[in-house]
Amino acid sequence: MEIADWRKKIDELDQTLLELLNKRANYSLEIGKIKKAAGMAVYDPKREEQIFLRLAQLNNGPMSDQAVRRLFERIIDESRHIEKEMMKAKGKKS
Amino acid sequence: MEIADWRKKIDELDQTLLELLNKRANYSLEIGKIKKAAGMAVYDPKREEQIFLRLAQLNNGPMSDQAVRRLFERIIDESRHIEKEMMKAKGKKS
Repeated sequence: MEIADWRKKIDELDQTLLELLNKRANYSLEIGKIKKAAGMAVYDPKREEQIFLRLAQLNNGPMSDQAVRRLFERIIDESRHIEKEMMKAKGKKS
Repeated sequence: MEIADWRKKIDELDQTLLELLNKRANYSLEIGKIKKAAGMAVYDPKREEQIFLRLAQLNNGPMSDQAVRRLFERIIDESRHIEKEMMKAKGKKS
């Protein structure tokens, strides 16, 4: 296989990744709504550690567990960011 | 649905994400091998811009195009990192 073939495979995979990352953000927003309604804190370091531990157990590489952790820290962080942006937008409307 | 239900959905999704991210890293390593054999530079900023542009076009949110770009910059960066680590490991063996 040539570079162009691998790139085509990466492009297809990226489209799926994008869809799943947006889906994950939506799930995360649903949890945020429930937490907000119940007056709970959005940030839950214990839950995040559980996520990283589980992913390390599932990880078969080639990414290292550290790389997986770094990536998912960023994924979770971006979800929190969306939540904040949405709350700000809501605040402006009302 | 309660928090626990959404978390279960996130856990399932994360397992798929992990598999796809590792698959992507493998594809990227294949391209790296071809480039190395041909004496080409690994870093290709033009290709990366194409990736970000395409993803922005495909993005339906809730993640912003900027958030998508940040995440994929990190994903690509981690792939490059693996490549470097593997070359280092090879160097130590020989």
